[in-house]
Amino acid sequence: MLIRDATELDWAAIWPFWRSIVSACETYCYDPELTEGQASALWMQQPPGRTAVAVDDGGTVLGTAKMHPNQGGPGAHVATASFMVDPRYGGHGVGRALGQDALSWARSAGYRAMQFNAVVQTNSGAVGLWRSLGFEVLATVPEAFQHPVHGYVGLHIMHRYL
Amino acid sequence: MLIRDATELDWAAIWPFWRSIVSACETYCYDPELTEGQASALWMQQPPGRTAVAVDDGGTVLGTAKMHPNQGGPGAHVATASFMVDPRYGGHGVGRALGQDALSWARSAGYRAMQFNAVVQTNSGAVGLWRSLGFEVLATVPEAFQHPVHGYVGLHIMHRYL
Repeated sequence: MLIRDATELDWAAIWPFWRSIVSACETYCYDPELTEGQASALWMQQPPGRTAVAVDDGGTVLGTAKMHPNQGGPGAHVATASFMVDPRYGGHGVGRALGQDALSWARSAGYRAMQFNAVVQTNSGAVGLWRSLGFEVLATVPEAFQHPVHGYVGLHIMHRYL
Repeated sequence: MLIRDATELDWAAIWPFWRSIVSACETYCYDPELTEGQASALWMQQPPGRTAVAVDDGGTVLGTAKMHPNQGGPGAHVATASFMVDPRYGGHGVGRALGQDALSWARSAGYRAMQFNAVVQTNSGAVGLWRSLGFEVLATVPEAFQHPVHGYVGLHIMHRYL
């Protein structure tokens, strides 16, 4: 598995699983009605942000991450990031590798911390992964996510210094 | 004092104090290098968001607020809002009136809660005002704001149900 900067050509491989994950409405605060163009504009970052892909030896895109300042101006020294792994390739460390890569990138880019704004409380795989990578839950915004199965659940705000 | 929906024509009155507040880098996570066009696009909301102005009897704009969903999709039932009062008219309840109006609007629009993502810890006037309007600090993101006088200070995440 290799992690590299995404190019425009990668979007075609990202979009099918991106759409599938967002349509499930279980892990992301994105409108499932977003068009492909809106989704691409949102995910494919320009500097100072960055979008990365994890690819296997054959070049297949296994997952993707975007990362950028969480706030602007006087808050721009804290990064944030978002991650999606193609469900067909889940459970093989793709998310962990993308997370470690995002932390390395943020450190290299001079950020002082990384913050996640909206980790769905019931997404235990993600919550456990981020904890194992040194993040802690600063707060849980109560009932901030309407889950199709669990109803209103919390959104964790997670943070770690770099 | 009247609070009403802002129109495009109000922007000319907002921009001087908006720029002044953002340039001070003491209370907002906006890049002080934003152009007027970028600032206007950011502040003057389209539905489902809303931008309001507080005006005095003579029609002078005293302050402004923007409000919109804090997240999309399954998180769109929580509102957020931002407020700026022209420093020449501070200390006369303009911020409080704008806050009460935003809460009323959010209730009417069917939101379940309001969340502020980045209230600068040293902005004690704002923190006290939001507490008095029923908000609580869910967490303080440590050192997330670089203050020109106080150095790295925290950003409060504040929340209340509606």
